[in-house]
Amino acid sequence: MKTKITELFGIKYPIIQGGMIWCSGWELASAVSNSAGLGLIGAGSMYPEILRQHIQKCKNATNKPFGVNLPLIYPQINEHIKIILEEGVKIVFTSAGNPKKYTSYLKEKGLKVVHVVANVKFAQKCVEAGVDAIVAEGYEAGGHNGFEENTTMTLIPQVCSAVDIPVIAAGGIATGAGLVAALALGAEGVQIGSRFAASVESSAHENFKNAILSTKDGETMVAFKKLIPVRLIKNDFYRRVKEIEDKGADVEELNELLGKGRAKLGMFEGKLSEGELEIGQISGLINEIKSAKEIIDEIVLESGIVFEKLRKIK
Amino acid sequence: MKTKITELFGIKYPIIQGGMIWCSGWELASAVSNSAGLGLIGAGSMYPEILRQHIQKCKNATNKPFGVNLPLIYPQINEHIKIILEEGVKIVFTSAGNPKKYTSYLKEKGLKVVHVVANVKFAQKCVEAGVDAIVAEGYEAGGHNGFEENTTMTLIPQVCSAVDIPVIAAGGIATGAGLVAALALGAEGVQIGSRFAASVESSAHENFKNAILSTKDGETMVAFKKLIPVRLIKNDFYRRVKEIEDKGADVEELNELLGKGRAKLGMFEGKLSEGELEIGQISGLINEIKSAKEIIDEIVLESGIVFEKLRKIK
Repeated sequence: MKTKITELFGIKYPIIQGGMIWCSGWELASAVSNSAGLGLIGAGSMYPEILRQHIQKCKNATNKPFGVNLPLIYPQINEHIKIILEEGVKIVFTSAGNPKKYTSYLKEKGLKVVHVVANVKFAQKCVEAGVDAIVAEGYEAGGHNGFEENTTMTLIPQVCSAVDIPVIAAGGIATGAGLVAALALGAEGVQIGSRFAASVESSAHENFKNAILSTKDGETMVAFKKLIPVRLIKNDFYRRVKEIEDKGADVEELNELLGKGRAKLGMFEGKLSEGELEIGQISGLINEIKSAKEIIDEIVLESGIVFEKLRKIK
Repeated sequence: MKTKITELFGIKYPIIQGGMIWCSGWELASAVSNSAGLGLIGAGSMYPEILRQHIQKCKNATNKPFGVNLPLIYPQINEHIKIILEEGVKIVFTSAGNPKKYTSYLKEKGLKVVHVVANVKFAQKCVEAGVDAIVAEGYEAGGHNGFEENTTMTLIPQVCSAVDIPVIAAGGIATGAGLVAALALGAEGVQIGSRFAASVESSAHENFKNAILSTKDGETMVAFKKLIPVRLIKNDFYRRVKEIEDKGADVEELNELLGKGRAKLGMFEGKLSEGELEIGQISGLINEIKSAKEIIDEIVLESGIVFEKLRKIK
């Protein structure tokens, strides 16, 4: 497969593994890159020196391109950026913040910069900021989520018609069918999170991986819309949030219930009742824990079947 | 284009016009059918004798297949069904209710029956009920909406993997790119609402049609999740709903604010502040009022370009 995204990153398949907190360390990122996709280390759950270790291990584990996902809201962001530059990382995906803040600095240093957005306005801001590509992520995605609730099906064509740089579709994609659908909508590649969260190389807790497999359609939901919306498995913790939200809980009450470290508790420590279990709607299609290589090979194989099916329709 | 849906209905293109309240009378349905899609009369906003008039006019206006969309929750449902049979309608799309209630009766009378669902469980119920096909409608769709918030991107492949009858994708589709994406996800056709709501032949008020054109991404939202969720343009009425919902309004308060006839007020009478303006997220891509024929021709032309683009990728 050849698209603007495979060319931009020098990869074989237009498949990017989302840089998820508590799931995407060097093992997952290097496994994806070694399987001809683009692996991303998720810096969001790493202290700066931990990030440095993961980058170093990733460099040892693959000679293929890989990148780092960097949420711009974290307090130690300048430390993170310093380490990314010192370690010679070539690709950064930034998210959760203003793309104008760091893009030109990172571009001057020779990095490729991609920013994640959930609406058309921020896609246009990304263009002004000079990013190389955009990830447009729909409402069905796991974890943090836009306020506008634009779904992948509607967001991708709207972003594609508003900008002329490559768009990577995210949210609700886990299979070859999803990849081809995203390409049809105008994307040049896909970012896949949930399916890799449940991979062999994911650093998530086994309990969380198994919870992903047993999640069916309708069993994730977006909570904390008055704070930062986040898509979660509907576990006991979610139900407690829902109960007070239905009664009109304000920001203070929600922050108190949320507390600190819920995502780590659920995803990394495997506490399925009290933790936040951040995963996408497409988890209903994920039924087996496979290696990153098996996942990518399967997506590529499936996409070939879908391309063929479409040829028969027209 | 040839799919199981074009074969099932004897139509040229796998494009079905959603049977929307206050938009889809005989003029729209016959125009779509005459343009080689499948037009549906929306019975949901029609008294029984009005429905009869629309069916009769539709039969006079086209010799192509057309159908009726019938929400099963309306009080005069038995009258509606009697008229559908008396007038010799061949295709019924039922929605908003249990597919087991009327399917076998309508099938015995020789009709083709399709039911609209928003989750996998109801898709399976549809198979047990013996329907000919399923419309699977995602969260991005306008108007009434499922509680699970499954988006089109995740709902279609999950429904397709759970059933072996043809699936029609709905929600977020307005263009050739959307059509091809839906086919890639496993659908055999699409149901398009919003784009036809803003067509020349739509019976919606001009004010509402113009409001659709000016709606951008993020400017629709689902309200009344404690009653029956419904996607609306964020107008003054929506903001009043949102305000009391944020404070934890209960079913009684919500029903009182909703009152009666809000959808007619907004969509048919053109009261843009106080009416319900039911439209989908994809309205951000709809920028011009065109005839049903222009819309279908454009979708078919665009889909050809997308098929070609995909061939170049692989």
